[in-house]
Amino acid sequence: MDAKRFITIFSILFSFLSVAVSQTLIRLKSENPFSGDRKILRDDGLYCESWRFTVETNDAGDWKTIPDKCLKFVEDYMTGPRYKSDLEVVSDDAISFASTVNVANDGLDAWIFDIDETLLSNIPYYTLHGYGSKAFDENSFDEWVDLAEAPALHASLRLYTQLQQMGFKLILLTGRNEYQKNVTEKNLKSSGYSNWERLILRGSSDMGTLAVSYKSGKRKELEDEGYRVHGSSGDQWSDLMGFATAKRSFKLPNIMYYIP
Amino acid sequence: MDAKRFITIFSILFSFLSVAVSQTLIRLKSENPFSGDRKILRDDGLYCESWRFTVETNDAGDWKTIPDKCLKFVEDYMTGPRYKSDLEVVSDDAISFASTVNVANDGLDAWIFDIDETLLSNIPYYTLHGYGSKAFDENSFDEWVDLAEAPALHASLRLYTQLQQMGFKLILLTGRNEYQKNVTEKNLKSSGYSNWERLILRGSSDMGTLAVSYKSGKRKELEDEGYRVHGSSGDQWSDLMGFATAKRSFKLPNIMYYIP
Repeated sequence: MDAKRFITIFSILFSFLSVAVSQTLIRLKSENPFSGDRKILRDDGLYCESWRFTVETNDAGDWKTIPDKCLKFVEDYMTGPRYKSDLEVVSDDAISFASTVNVANDGLDAWIFDIDETLLSNIPYYTLHGYGSKAFDENSFDEWVDLAEAPALHASLRLYTQLQQMGFKLILLTGRNEYQKNVTEKNLKSSGYSNWERLILRGSSDMGTLAVSYKSGKRKELEDEGYRVHGSSGDQWSDLMGFATAKRSFKLPNIMYYIP
Repeated sequence: MDAKRFITIFSILFSFLSVAVSQTLIRLKSENPFSGDRKILRDDGLYCESWRFTVETNDAGDWKTIPDKCLKFVEDYMTGPRYKSDLEVVSDDAISFASTVNVANDGLDAWIFDIDETLLSNIPYYTLHGYGSKAFDENSFDEWVDLAEAPALHASLRLYTQLQQMGFKLILLTGRNEYQKNVTEKNLKSSGYSNWERLILRGSSDMGTLAVSYKSGKRKELEDEGYRVHGSSGDQWSDLMGFATAKRSFKLPNIMYYIP
């Protein structure tokens, strides 16, 4: 065996090992949220997880935009398997509770749904607008709403359909405005929702009211009409808190924005 | 250069690369929660993360024990950096809010703290009792309480101290019983807490009352005495909800047990 042959064999083995190392690194990197600049990203990941905890439990209170260092985290969460999985488990909880309710024949057993990030997903919009890293731009969002192209959240459509089969009356209570009624109905229908009992939008008298007050007031009116509001599903605590609250509330995940 | 020398150089380089590969794998494996039996553990991990979401948002409602397949997840969470990090960010939120309060000189600006898993950690107990995977055993837990050895949660001691410096009166409202008063005081003091305004425990008239009603009733009494309860910190939703709620509530993480 001469030196040339050794160099050839050595080169081949070395290349093979180098490829193995880089492939392993690439594979693990794609699966490991804390890879990359390891120390910095691990700390940011831990912080962003904790920030998410405080947002979802409402500990954070009012907030305007996501933390700068959590942009990648928010993008990964909202477009990846975790968001979908969280939504599915929330719907499972809601169905478990709903199945304990004795639904009467009087058509007054009700369930309230919010629309944005509850029945419909605005991820296609937020993908183009920084996932909550920029201040809310009403004009561009309204243009998106006018397209009526928001897809259904799978887990919510499943819950919606099942509640209807159980005999619940479904009331949609949204912060969208009356002038968006037609496009909202169009979008709901094209994404698979049908036969809601009522669609309540912000009218002129509701302008300038905080969401939590507007929604509590509307729930009170429903209560006064005789509805028994068993459940309420919403991605914002302002969908669920305040007064005349439902017997059980179901907080859906959303770490892109906060509505007081 | 002869063949022998080539073999030596080749062997050294090969060993070096092999060590690099194995070290990288070991290091990444220890940091990646989804390593091991990749497919199965990843799915369970995703489910347990979502289960945790529904527990911390109270979507799950009443539950008795943690899901069997989440035992490792719960252990890792409660004993690892995530739990500590979550607690620290919750305390940061509480301090941010507290610093917006104008504390008066009348000694009536108050903050309520729960004790177990809020001021004191029972992790040493739960480490020996399956992290919530087994039904609650009052006898063995009471024996642990009698030891008065529960450590302080660092983030809560930090918040407690800072609130006191700001002039808040700290009221401790716990589901522990009157007969545990002495050991509770002893444990609080030995773990660093001092100068609370009041320690409220379950008396004979509070027996058989749900935690949420017992705690709401006590908050109402404080309100009637003139206290302005600005903040409330607790690891259970039953510490925070009901009536006479604080202006702001701070839900601390805890995925080991649920108290209605």
